[in-house]
This record gives sequence, C-alpha cells and structure tokens, in this order.
Amino acid sequence: MSQRPQVLAVHGRGLLPFQTPLLSGDDLGVTRGDGCFDALRVTADPSGARAHFVTAHLERFARSAAALGIATPPVAQWRELIDEALAAWAWPGEAICKVVLTRGLESGPSEPVGYLTITAAPDFSRVRRGVSAVTLDRGYAHDAFAAAPWLLGGVKTLSYAVNVAAQRAARIAGVDEAVFRSSDALLLEGPTAGLLYARDDALWTTPVTGSGVLPSVTIAELFSVAAAQGVRTGAAFLPAGEARTCDGVWLVSAIRGVVPVLELDGVELRHFADVTSTLAAAVGFPRID
Amino acid sequence: MSQRPQVLAVHGRGLLPFQTPLLSGDDLGVTRGDGCFDALRVTADPSGARAHFVTAHLERFARSAAALGIATPPVAQWRELIDEALAAWAWPGEAICKVVLTRGLESGPSEPVGYLTITAAPDFSRVRRGVSAVTLDRGYAHDAFAAAPWLLGGVKTLSYAVNVAAQRAARIAGVDEAVFRSSDALLLEGPTAGLLYARDDALWTTPVTGSGVLPSVTIAELFSVAAAQGVRTGAAFLPAGEARTCDGVWLVSAIRGVVPVLELDGVELRHFADVTSTLAAAVGFPRID
Repeated sequence: MSQRPQVLAVHGRGLLPFQTPLLSGDDLGVTRGDGCFDALRVTADPSGARAHFVTAHLERFARSAAALGIATPPVAQWRELIDEALAAWAWPGEAICKVVLTRGLESGPSEPVGYLTITAAPDFSRVRRGVSAVTLDRGYAHDAFAAAPWLLGGVKTLSYAVNVAAQRAARIAGVDEAVFRSSDALLLEGPTAGLLYARDDALWTTPVTGSGVLPSVTIAELFSVAAAQGVRTGAAFLPAGEARTCDGVWLVSAIRGVVPVLELDGVELRHFADVTSTLAAAVGFPRID
Repeated sequence: MSQRPQVLAVHGRGLLPFQTPLLSGDDLGVTRGDGCFDALRVTADPSGARAHFVTAHLERFARSAAALGIATPPVAQWRELIDEALAAWAWPGEAICKVVLTRGLESGPSEPVGYLTITAAPDFSRVRRGVSAVTLDRGYAHDAFAAAPWLLGGVKTLSYAVNVAAQRAARIAGVDEAVFRSSDALLLEGPTAGLLYARDDALWTTPVTGSGVLPSVTIAELFSVAAAQGVRTGAAFLPAGEARTCDGVWLVSAIRGVVPVLELDGVELRHFADVTSTLAAAVGFPRID
C-alpha cells in the first residue's frame, strides 16, 4: 500500500507533520487500549473540505470519554481542531477523520492526549454495491451489558483487537465482512458498522441498551430522514436465521455508508439496488449503479 | 504521582530517553489496540538487575503475536533488548519490564513496532498481605471462546480497556480488586492476575482452554515447584459461591506475586499467612509478615 495523503492535528500543538511520533510507549492508550475514538467522513472538492455529522460524532465521542472517566477537551475545541485540519486538507474525494483521546502516561503525572488524523479513503465503490458476510459469535448474550458497565458496552474504545480479528476471520472464511451475533443467536452489528434491515415496510436497527451495540450516528441520521418522509423506523433484534426474510440488510458506517449484505452465511439475501441508492443518498453517499 | 525512574528500549533503535515520543497517532496499536504485550518482574541489587521467568514470558508473548498474525522479532532479539535495558537499570528494588508489539501504521507501508519499558514498581507490601475483592460478570459463558478464535481468548492483547474498567469498578465498590466470573457464575481470573486456590490438599487454577483465561506464567512456575515437592496441582473451575470453602484464594501475577484474597463479595475467606509466604517464596517473592 502506498502512502496516502494525511493530516495530523494535536490539541495544544496544532498541525504537525503526519509522521511525527506522538505517543509515549508508556501511554495507557497504547499499553491498555485505554482511550476512545470516533470516525467522521470527510468530502472535499475545489471549494474546500467538510466533515459530515460533526455534532453527532463529537457528542458520541464525548459520551465515550465520560464512560471511561477521561477528561476531554470541550466539544468546541474539537470542532476548532477539525476545522483547522480541514483547512489544510486539499485532497479531492473522500477521506476519514479520526478523533482519538488517550488517558495519558501510566507512570508519572500526565494529561490525556487528544488528536485527530485525516487520511484519504480507499475506493469504496465496489463495497457499496454489496458484500458477502459471515456471522461470528460475539460470545455475549444479547443483554450481557445491561448490569455490567465495566464491559463498556456502546463505548467506542481504543480496545478494538477483537473487532479487527473478526474482520480477519471473515477474510479467512472467504467473505468480505463479519456480522456479530449474540451467544443466543441474535444479530448485533458489524465490527465497524451498525446493522440496518428492512421488514414489514419499516426500517430497523438493533437495540443498543444492554446489548453492547454501538449507537450508530449514520443510522440515527438515516432514521431521522426516513421518519420525516413517513417511513416507520424502530429498534429490534433480528434472529440470525431470519435475515433471509428481510427486504434488505445493510452494514452502515460513517465511512463506507450504506453497504448492502448480498449473502450471509452462504445464503443469498434480498436486495433492491434502488432502495440502497435511496438510503445512501439520504445520508450524503453516492447512489449505486 | 511523581515521575518514577524508567528505561525505554526499541527494536532497531536501542536505548532511548524515556520521554521520547515513539508511536504514530496512526499506529494500529493505538487506534485499534491491535498488538500484544507481556509484563516481567525485575529485581535489582548493587550487583545488577535481572528479569524473572524471561523464557516463559517471551514464549507467551510470541504466542500472542502469532494469534494476532503480527510478525515479531525473534525471542533471542527480545532477550538481547531486555539485557540491554537491564544493563542500564540501576534502581534498587522491584521494577516492571513491559514488552510491547504493535501492528504498525494503519495507512501506508509499515513495520510492527517492538519496544520495552522498565519502570520502578510501586510498593506492594500492603497488597501482598491481602486484598478485598468483588466478583464482576465478564459477560461470557465459561466456554465462550472454545470455537471463536476471533475473540482472542488467552491472548494478551493491547485491548485491555475492559480490564482497566473492571479495576475502576472494584474501587468504586470500595474494594481493592476485581475477580471476573463467567455469565454462568464460575470464577475466571482477575483483570491482570490469574486465580489460584487451595482445596482438598491440592492447588488449583482455572482452565484456560475455551475460557478466555490467560495462561499465567507465575502459576505455571508455582505448580512446577509444588509438583516437585509432591503437592497435587490441577485446573478446575471454581463456582463463585464456593470460594468460602477453599483453604485459600489468591490472585497471582508476575508483578505483584501471590496476593491472598481475604474477602470476596463481602464474605471473609480462609487465609493462612504461612501458606501464602511459602507460595510467594516458591516463585521468588518476599514472605509476608
């Protein structure tokens, strides 16, 4: 992979050359994955660059920091840092803005470290036309997080090794993506995407309360648009075996958009390209061919 | 907390000033907790410093790297790096040597980053006389990891945010430590320690196969000494409610040693100080008063 264009901006230091080593080997964000992040889509054209759904992402990021008990710069300062980085971003097309907060040094007095990166995005045009996926047991029952705040359900922490390993396992299984299912066989979410499905003339996602599912900013925005157009929306678990009965199943993320799952565990799922196009366009993504 | 003496050594770079920023903000070890670590006890006196059970720790570390599919420098090179760091370590008493491997940059060509830190240890004399603990549901059934390698059971990854959160939850509950229990109410391990218990004139730990429990280097060494002295050892789950029937329950780690649990979920446990002293001495830790 060749080096892609990138910008680095750090609270209290401003813009820095991207390759600047930033974190101590003793930072708890490194040694314990003890910190949080969020990821925003950036689009740019000759008139400038902008980040999408900034308020909603920064609100979720602030909730993650609060759940970890890490003091974060106020949202307004994050917004300023994003604006500063966007002003330096001149690469046309799509990019990923990642905001990161670590707890700071393990040994010795320390402040949290807050920074962001902007990186040019890979080409998602193939992925957006549809993916194959496999369900992987997440090991937890669908309500395992209800009385266990230490499990950090719904918190977007830096401890994502299992999410990355699930993506590796999907590739080993010869498919594009993983969809986590609970130990009691309910579909939950993807390793880096929320789950959306169409059924009974309504749009559904999976419940976040007690389930460990991360609240999806993009699905919330989509539901807001859908509701304004009179489409019913709701939250309900989908048994893994019932995906085939839906009128569409999608993995939704801020970066890749509304990605239809064409095949799950070797079973072909229903898909209507015009529905995917409509959903994608509702949250600012290109229609598919 | 005042700054403690520290050493930093990096593969390919040797010794560096401890405060040297080392990791890119784009390193997957930071942004995804995608990497592994291990921790060794260091003791030093005027004749020099040494690390304990180096071979066993480096073998476990290599297994962690292999499970993540990260290319790591060979064990011999880690040993050399440890020796180089120990030669620079002149602080008397106990210290912690942490070896860390990250996957490297997310965007662009990159090599894994391998480094170690040595940090003076806090005073563990109180902890070694005994702690209070609370059991916390780990959310997984005791066999959740058996058929799910993507859950990374038994892999000492950098994704330890839940372990850290469990320690916070224990402090909030007014006790010293947490002990994870499975969703089916079997004791598993501590967030950073293995579980040891005495029962029926034998020493037991919890099974690692399928349970997600990390194989404890220190318990393995202890069992080796015990077996040589004719003490029976074995692996078996301990139902949370049966801890009070044991002749001792300990949290065992390379750094803190053999720490007796004096109270679990508000119930006083049996404890014989001379047994703890014998166990601690068997793996090189001081006897308790």
